[in-house]
Amino acid sequence: MFETINTNVNKTVAFLETELETFNNALQHKVIPKKTYLLREGEICDFEAYILKGCIRSYYIDENGSEVILQFAIEDWWVSNIASFNDKKPSKIFIETLEDCEVLLLSTANKEILLDEVPKFEKVFRLMVQKNLSATQNRLITTIAKAAPEKYLDFMKQYPTISQRVAQHYIASYLGISAEFLSKIRTRLSKQ
Amino acid sequence: MFETINTNVNKTVAFLETELETFNNALQHKVIPKKTYLLREGEICDFEAYILKGCIRSYYIDENGSEVILQFAIEDWWVSNIASFNDKKPSKIFIETLEDCEVLLLSTANKEILLDEVPKFEKVFRLMVQKNLSATQNRLITTIAKAAPEKYLDFMKQYPTISQRVAQHYIASYLGISAEFLSKIRTRLSKQ
Repeated sequence: MFETINTNVNKTVAFLETELETFNNALQHKVIPKKTYLLREGEICDFEAYILKGCIRSYYIDENGSEVILQFAIEDWWVSNIASFNDKKPSKIFIETLEDCEVLLLSTANKEILLDEVPKFEKVFRLMVQKNLSATQNRLITTIAKAAPEKYLDFMKQYPTISQRVAQHYIASYLGISAEFLSKIRTRLSKQ
Repeated sequence: MFETINTNVNKTVAFLETELETFNNALQHKVIPKKTYLLREGEICDFEAYILKGCIRSYYIDENGSEVILQFAIEDWWVSNIASFNDKKPSKIFIETLEDCEVLLLSTANKEILLDEVPKFEKVFRLMVQKNLSATQNRLITTIAKAAPEKYLDFMKQYPTISQRVAQHYIASYLGISAEFLSKIRTRLSKQ
């Protein structure tokens, strides 16, 4: 159960067996059915979730009541709402499973204990957040500055497997376009 | 010269005098005139800059050749391009001073040495990146989901002092609207 997550954290820092055990003891294994909320708007996010299996989305509901997908996450990714987790503020976003999922949850309290006991994990989490920041900055640039076909190509590059796994209207919501327009873009690109 | 930065890092972790000295020795003090590039598109970002004095912007040039401002940074903020810094990839963005600036630069090499010598700095940088991620996620939500007047109010909340310091067309560029439209929004809001 801990094989992939341990391989993942060992990539950046070399840990002792005992340190990985402390880490694994801090994690809570959970099986979560499809279409279940891990976090709702207004709640305080008190976890970071490592995905063993499945696909999860985070989304926001805009002023017109439309869902705007901020991020997809699949196997070997972490998902959380760092703004809420960090500052203990109510979340602006929802986090929901799109498939049946298996996750390892690290709670705020357990994370603090882990970092006290094995400070070497600071580096792991710093690099993880840096990677996430880098992806979010990219998403921001794409959102602001690119036309829909380029947005779609960027999406396919960042998430090569997701378009086979989730309904097309979710991808359209991520791209900020209608499902019809997405379909037109796909047809046009497939002809090129 | 190191007073504010040391106070800043001491907020989250208690450092010894000698550890702060190691930190300060890793920093390079630089005076940079207004309208100078710290980073250009295509270059690899090899620094994180702590601002002692002045205002800096990071921006992107979109497919139509228009500048899109991603971030403003002022005193006591850090500015960098984490995507480029992290993965040693060419930057997609520009970082430019808007005022005469004084900064403390931490190079990639010095950061690595510092983290080896004083691993307690891992926490400082993790929390710094988390704060940045949280701000970037907020910016993304605002960009995608809010109308221009709300964007402007969000901007004023996040950057209460910047609208007095930079030309209005920079703020318009940050909000993704024309300077004329920004002026209309300001007039309308001032009447409310």
